[in-house]
Formats: sequence, C-alpha cells, structure tokens
Amino acid sequence: MEKLNVGVIGLGCRGQWLMRDVILLMSNVKVTAVCDVYDDRNEEAAAMTEEKCGHRPATTTDYKELIHRDDVDAVIIVCAWEWHVPIAIEAMKAGKAVGLEVGGGYSVKQCWDLVDTYEATGTPFMFLENCCYGRRELMCLNMAEQGVFGEVVHCRGAYMHDLREEVTKGEENRHYRLRNYTKRNTENYPTHELGPIAKILKINNGNRMLTLSAMASKAAGLEHYVNDRDVENKKLKGVRFNQGDVVNTMIKCANGETIMLTLNTTLPRFYSRDFTVCGTKGMYEEENDTVFLDKKYTMMEEMFFKDFWGNAKDYEEEYDHPIWKKFLEDGVQGGHGGMDWLVLDAFFKSIIEKRACPIDVYDAAAWMVISALAEESIALGGQALPIPDFTNGMWMLREQIEL
Amino acid sequence: MEKLNVGVIGLGCRGQWLMRDVILLMSNVKVTAVCDVYDDRNEEAAAMTEEKCGHRPATTTDYKELIHRDDVDAVIIVCAWEWHVPIAIEAMKAGKAVGLEVGGGYSVKQCWDLVDTYEATGTPFMFLENCCYGRRELMCLNMAEQGVFGEVVHCRGAYMHDLREEVTKGEENRHYRLRNYTKRNTENYPTHELGPIAKILKINNGNRMLTLSAMASKAAGLEHYVNDRDVENKKLKGVRFNQGDVVNTMIKCANGETIMLTLNTTLPRFYSRDFTVCGTKGMYEEENDTVFLDKKYTMMEEMFFKDFWGNAKDYEEEYDHPIWKKFLEDGVQGGHGGMDWLVLDAFFKSIIEKRACPIDVYDAAAWMVISALAEESIALGGQALPIPDFTNGMWMLREQIEL
Repeated sequence: MEKLNVGVIGLGCRGQWLMRDVILLMSNVKVTAVCDVYDDRNEEAAAMTEEKCGHRPATTTDYKELIHRDDVDAVIIVCAWEWHVPIAIEAMKAGKAVGLEVGGGYSVKQCWDLVDTYEATGTPFMFLENCCYGRRELMCLNMAEQGVFGEVVHCRGAYMHDLREEVTKGEENRHYRLRNYTKRNTENYPTHELGPIAKILKINNGNRMLTLSAMASKAAGLEHYVNDRDVENKKLKGVRFNQGDVVNTMIKCANGETIMLTLNTTLPRFYSRDFTVCGTKGMYEEENDTVFLDKKYTMMEEMFFKDFWGNAKDYEEEYDHPIWKKFLEDGVQGGHGGMDWLVLDAFFKSIIEKRACPIDVYDAAAWMVISALAEESIALGGQALPIPDFTNGMWMLREQIEL
Repeated sequence: MEKLNVGVIGLGCRGQWLMRDVILLMSNVKVTAVCDVYDDRNEEAAAMTEEKCGHRPATTTDYKELIHRDDVDAVIIVCAWEWHVPIAIEAMKAGKAVGLEVGGGYSVKQCWDLVDTYEATGTPFMFLENCCYGRRELMCLNMAEQGVFGEVVHCRGAYMHDLREEVTKGEENRHYRLRNYTKRNTENYPTHELGPIAKILKINNGNRMLTLSAMASKAAGLEHYVNDRDVENKKLKGVRFNQGDVVNTMIKCANGETIMLTLNTTLPRFYSRDFTVCGTKGMYEEENDTVFLDKKYTMMEEMFFKDFWGNAKDYEEEYDHPIWKKFLEDGVQGGHGGMDWLVLDAFFKSIIEKRACPIDVYDAAAWMVISALAEESIALGGQALPIPDFTNGMWMLREQIEL
C-alpha cells in the first residue's frame, strides 16, 4: 500500500503529542516533513520520527517551504491559532490536502477566505475536531438520529478546563494562549463543544446558526493566580488580562433550536465539556453523565435524581455509535481517550480513498467564526449579531457526510 | 404572646400547601381571612384552618375586601402571577404588611410601581423567595462571605422542572401557567435561581445588574406532549404554545460578574436548579453536588472528577449557614425541604419584631423585572437591554440585611 506523505506544521505540545501518540503509529501515512518556528522542536520531532519509523523527515522553520515540497501531499496544521487560516489557505492553494487543528477565528473575513479558497481550489480540507468523535458525543448523535430524544430543541456545551498554568508558565512563554488571554476577550475556543452539537443539530445540512449573543465575566482568575502564587513566569506579576474568566455565548438556529456555549479556563475547577442534549422525549447531561428518558421515572425519582447519576453507561450497549463499537472491538488507540485517533484516521482515509471529508470547510468556518463574533458581541455589551451563512443557501440541500 | 393576624390571598395548590404545611403550624400567626376567586377553595381553606387551629377564618372572593379587614395585619399573596403586583400595591397602600410569593414581572413599569408604592407608604414588604433559604444556597452564601471561593466571578442557576402535566392538566384548567405558556415567551420564573445568586453577588448592596440578553428555543415540548399523549385536557390538542422550551438569560453586573439563568419546564427531565458559583479559589456545582477548591486535587483528579461527585456534604459541618445549623438543631419543618418554613418565619418575625425584611422590595423589583426584560430581549432576537436601577444609586451604600 502506498502511504500518504504528510507534513506536520506546528510542533508544540499538541503537535508532538499527535505525532507520538497517533500519526507515527498509523500504517497508512508517512511523515516526510516537519515545521516549527523553533529549531529545537524541529529536531525533537525529526528524532522522534526516526526512532519510531526509521526515517528522518525534512525540517524547516518556513511553513511555505514545507507546503511546496514534492514529498508532501497533505498537511496537518497544529500551530498557534493565529496562523491556522493563513497556512490552511496557502496549503489549499498549493493543492495540499489540509487537516486543520481546532481553534477559533479572528475575523468574519478570514472565515470567508477559508471557504472561498476551498471553493476556488477544490483541495480537500478537514477540520480536526476530535470531540466530534468522543464516545458520549457519538452515542448522543446516534440516539438523536434514532429519535430517542424526540425533537432536539436545545444543546449546551462548554470548554471548562483550568489552563492557568498552561497560559502563564515559563520565563520564555512560547504559548500562543498567553497573548490571546492578555489581549482578547472572547469565546476563544468554541469548537470542542460546538462541533458535536452542530452535528446533532445538522448545522450546514438542513439547519444553520442565525444569531449569537455573548457576555464575558470580569477577568480575575489569572490575575489572582500570578499575583498570589509563586508562578514560574514572574514577568506576569501585575499584568492585566483582558480575557474574561467565564464567557457565555447563546446561539439561535434556523430551525428554532438554541445552543449555549461556555468558556471557563482561568478558574480552579474540574474538567468538563458540559455536553447536554435536550429533546421532547429525553436528554443527556455530561455533568452527572445521565440519560433521562420520558415516562421512565416516578415524580419522586425526577425530583431526587441523584441515584441515577452515571447511568449513561447503561445505554452504551444499545446506543454506542457504530464508529465506537468498531473502535472498541479493534482496540482503542491514541490520545484523548481515542478521539485523536478517530479524527485523524477519518481525515487520512478520506484523502487516500478520495471521499468527502466529514467535517468540512463550511463546518470549520461556521464554528470558528463564533470566536470573532463573540468578541464583537461582548465588546458591544451582549449585542445580538448575525452569523454568516458560509454555504450561501446550500445548507438547505447539503447532505451530511457520515463521520 | 399576641399573634400576627394574617390573610392569605390565593388558595390554589401552592396557597393551600403553604397554609397546611407551614402557616397553620406557626405559633406566632393566626389566619383570620382567606381569599380566592373560586368559592370551593375558600371553603376548603376555611375548613382546614378550623380543623387545625380551632377557628374559622373569614372568606371572600374579593381580595380588596380581605385587605381592608381590621383583623388582617399582614397578607400572604400566593395567587396567579398576573395579580401579584396589583394586590401587593393595594395592600401596601392599606398599610398591610406584604409577603409576596415569587413569580416574574410583566412590565418594567409595574416593578417601578411596586418600589414607588413601598417608598410612598413605608409598609413592610418581603419577597418570599424560599430558595434563598435552601441549605446548599445558604452554605454557598456562607462560603462566599468567608472567601472560600475567592473572588466570585460567575454564577449560574436554573429552574429546570418538568411542568408539562401541571401546565396542561384538567378539563377546566384553573392554572395561571397555561395562559402564560400559550401567550408569552420569556424567562417566566427567574427568582428561584436568581435570588440566591443575587444575595451572593450583593445585588442592591454594593453591586447591581446592568444588562441582560435572552434567547428562547422553539416551543416543541408541550405540543408533543398534548398531541402524543392521552392528556386529560383534550381541548389543548393542536393548540400552539408561544413559550420556548429552554430560555437562557445572561446578565452582566456592575462589578463585572456574569449570571446565567436557564428556564426549562416543558421537556422531560430531572428537577434541578443548577445552582453554580465560580470564584478564583473554588466553585460549587449542584448538578453533581460538588465543591471544588483550588490546589486540592491532582491534575488527573481534575480531569476525571467523577469520584468526587456528591462531596458537598463533606463541607456541611464546617460551612452550613448558621440559619441551617439552628434549623437542624430545632428540627426541620415545612415544605420544600424546610425552605418554605424559613422564608415565612423570616417574614413574620420581621413584622412582629419591626425589623427590616431581608428580601425587600428592591430585590423583588430587580429579580421580577428579568421576566419583563427577557421577553423583550427574546422578541428582539437576543438584543442586550439595560436593567433598571430600582434603588436610584442607593445600591452603592445600602447595607445587606441578614437573611
């Protein structure tokens, strides 16, 4: 079998992790080139590839050089958020299939540029939203598609992850998050929660997001953190952060559903994506991992539901998504509980087998634009703003590609 | 001891319940008159009073007649939502102390009228928000006041209660909810969640709510319910409901905190008020009844927090509010886990001992107005709207009355 030649752009924590735990273990791809602006990261990735796969990939600090190499057919873009769209556009123009790691957009215009470039070039593009492949997310997608929840009217999701150490660490902080937390104030990471919800609500496939309104709390978490603790990065003492600790974004869809997104990354808390699906016949809620179905419980059980916390596991046998049933049979591999493996596997197989990518450029634009619009809505005091239709009306006829 | 003479206006389910489980059991009050528009309810309440207390209260279908009786010193208003403010105003004008059951307001103007009447008459007024006296809510208030959560930046709360049967039941539906669900579309019941949050965030006492934005999902729950089931009230088949199933309202406060409110009353689900407090040093969340404090858990424990679900009980001994410590010692009484007893006890004692009521007319106006403003914001597509300052600037100097 001919292997797909892949270049990896961006070799920070996430890029190295994806290579080590997923890409370098896959039998159908070969990493032929790696790129980061820091030489030491390039060296580390090249050495790791050589050790695991027996060949040394080319290294460069110039992403354009990597993109234009003849031995690169597809690129995985895992760099700082600000460079996601420019690099993806450069790659699509060069005819190199793009797998784009997640992050939020910076302007409505750049989301249109991404779509325009895809439409002009026809280069395959997939947005690598791993949470679309989460076990519970896929189980709920399966349940929703089978009508178990009835008519779904509301979904909620969040990225609630204490990133205070990650944002602030190091004397020479190389992390793109720091500048985003000192300078911006928005829902800066919407897609982990929005992606799975968009698949359930058929966004861009018979439905679309119409408007949003966002509000941010004050920014107190990081300032307390750097001032109260003996944090590594002493330069941050006294620095002001613009990024509110908790950002809530409400979205209204064409078919009348609402979506609630929450970002909460600078306060002490347990990790949660708060994934919640509410329909006319039942619901799922991640916070206590419960499925609630109509007519199944007594009134007293409804009032005091604690005894049923964690009952979602009882639905796995019947409703685990076929993707996960197979994955469990074959043996779960890769990072983040297997989600990373599944999303990259879907991307590479789509390219090799010349099939449409299941999370496409319209999904990417619609999900990423939330960051740009939430920033504007917050600045305008919670003003409701329209969400562009990146399909120009085609959402009414586009059929969903299976994940 | 002289007893306080009390008239009860509104004898539906809630009114009868409050009388039976709380008011008629209290040694410091005497129910001298009852009033409902339905004669059978008056008869039932009078008979119950006679049976339990040995005297028969006066009965009337005219609330004004009750208010102006010489043997009525205070009124408890437990009627349909639409009549809360008109009756409260009439009673304050007559100098009769008002205990007002909760509900949302219908216009900004009527909330101002409530405040204006109080200021003009000086008649004691208390908003009977029982959830301010919930055990967890008071524990979190205590923890917040002791600084356990650090600087509180965000709170979330909800009224998530499947009321489909209550809204639709009966051939001759006497319930005020039905007309509110067919005609309106708003956060129609904000105070169970907002009240305890407002106390934590010191709303009207050094802080105030500045703006809100609200969105409603489509209304599908009740239509599926009445069409799919053999519901009692067959007249409702085919009726359209305006009330969205899930309504989210975001609020921004003067000191930079945000509040998220959710109404979810027409879908199958377990009961929850989703009470959540997020600060720079820790948090509480009702959905899995957990307290999370900074530096207490490993990174892996933060990622997989399931083992700690329900740990809030471990904080009761140290942080239960003094009100609850005493209540537990004395023996918990009354409905809704004791909250009804505590809120009515606070009201009656304030009147008898001539002390300021702990949940006052400014609280009532600020909390009730959310319903009127959310309705407008939803109709305007999530438009951000200003929330009036019912204290006219006095919020900066007003001291909080202890609950």
